[in-house]
Amino acid sequence: MRMRKKKHADKRISACAEFAIANPQDIRGVWRDIFKNDCPLHLEIGCGKGDFICGMAQKFPDINFIAIEKNKDVSVVALEKAQQQNLTNVKFIINDAANLTEYFADGEISRIYLNFSDPWKKRYQYNKRLTHFGFLDIYKKILKPTSSVFFKTDNRDLFEFSIKSFGSNGFAVKNITYDLHNSEFLRDNIMTEYEKIFVSQNLPICRLEAAIPPI
Amino acid sequence: MRMRKKKHADKRISACAEFAIANPQDIRGVWRDIFKNDCPLHLEIGCGKGDFICGMAQKFPDINFIAIEKNKDVSVVALEKAQQQNLTNVKFIINDAANLTEYFADGEISRIYLNFSDPWKKRYQYNKRLTHFGFLDIYKKILKPTSSVFFKTDNRDLFEFSIKSFGSNGFAVKNITYDLHNSEFLRDNIMTEYEKIFVSQNLPICRLEAAIPPI
Repeated sequence: MRMRKKKHADKRISACAEFAIANPQDIRGVWRDIFKNDCPLHLEIGCGKGDFICGMAQKFPDINFIAIEKNKDVSVVALEKAQQQNLTNVKFIINDAANLTEYFADGEISRIYLNFSDPWKKRYQYNKRLTHFGFLDIYKKILKPTSSVFFKTDNRDLFEFSIKSFGSNGFAVKNITYDLHNSEFLRDNIMTEYEKIFVSQNLPICRLEAAIPPI
Repeated sequence: MRMRKKKHADKRISACAEFAIANPQDIRGVWRDIFKNDCPLHLEIGCGKGDFICGMAQKFPDINFIAIEKNKDVSVVALEKAQQQNLTNVKFIINDAANLTEYFADGEISRIYLNFSDPWKKRYQYNKRLTHFGFLDIYKKILKPTSSVFFKTDNRDLFEFSIKSFGSNGFAVKNITYDLHNSEFLRDNIMTEYEKIFVSQNLPICRLEAAIPPI
């Protein structure tokens, strides 16, 4: 856990307490109890200010969304967004993705979203990339069989790295596009904060699905 | 069809007539009649001198193998190899892969092998690459649902191109390795002529599977 301590943020988080899961390790394996239904669980890792996860929660009321974000100052914005929209199918974990297996039982998650993850550009930082095999091993544990990771990024280098990483580590990479906003996959797309900026600058967005075989 | 006319080759091909399918378009949809059984059909595109296809046919007697090679002078060596080994589960088509849909009915093929295909290095030649989307459309027609293309090459640029091409055109790319001969996929590997040379020079071989979803 690497969070900046900010009194102000803590206070604002407390005001949205019903959206922030304080002790996710206590809910491991029983997330359905939190949402009070059996709908599938979709997880966004690194939700930023929450435009994507709140947009998805509105668009897909029969899915339960969980977003994890380690930056407290950013996640408070996401929490307040969910509260303002009175969303009942989204919860937040303010913590590090490296701990995911403590929060979710094997096969508890039906889909993972990675959106505009930090590209960690130096070679010695590659193990911090959310598509590094160390993270993929975590995803394989918490994902259901035959489920997928949906990944989008503006960073071409991270994208190429991720294709190889998924494809070499037990995932099947499919539905690749190098220009999401001029592709058939735009239909169900909800934009993140970053994405809105990139699109306004006419920068192309890369997108893929990495599925867990058997195929 | 671009074949070099060589009297000598024609004569040698005639001597192996039972292995060379002269009119494959007449057998479209009824290849089982040629092999006189219902075993799955695996197709190698560009078989060269036939080390791979003959090795596979020996190793997997319950699979019927068909190899297509447009170079007559090369394929005659493959034909003679099959004859010397008395193989009953391998046949050859001396023709161009662009015509595959004339030779095979929709869904007739259970697996395609592409081994050390010509990298066609100039950008304006990319449409000749056997993993260009024009060819992938052909493969999708003749392949069964949930079957795969198995691809290996020493050419890193062609490999990267192929990953993207498969992943962007309806295939799911999986089991990627950049060093086949130091990977778990070596177990079932049969080496081609080129591969033996590369391996003797300690050059790494790239390998992937491109599967047809649904996943």
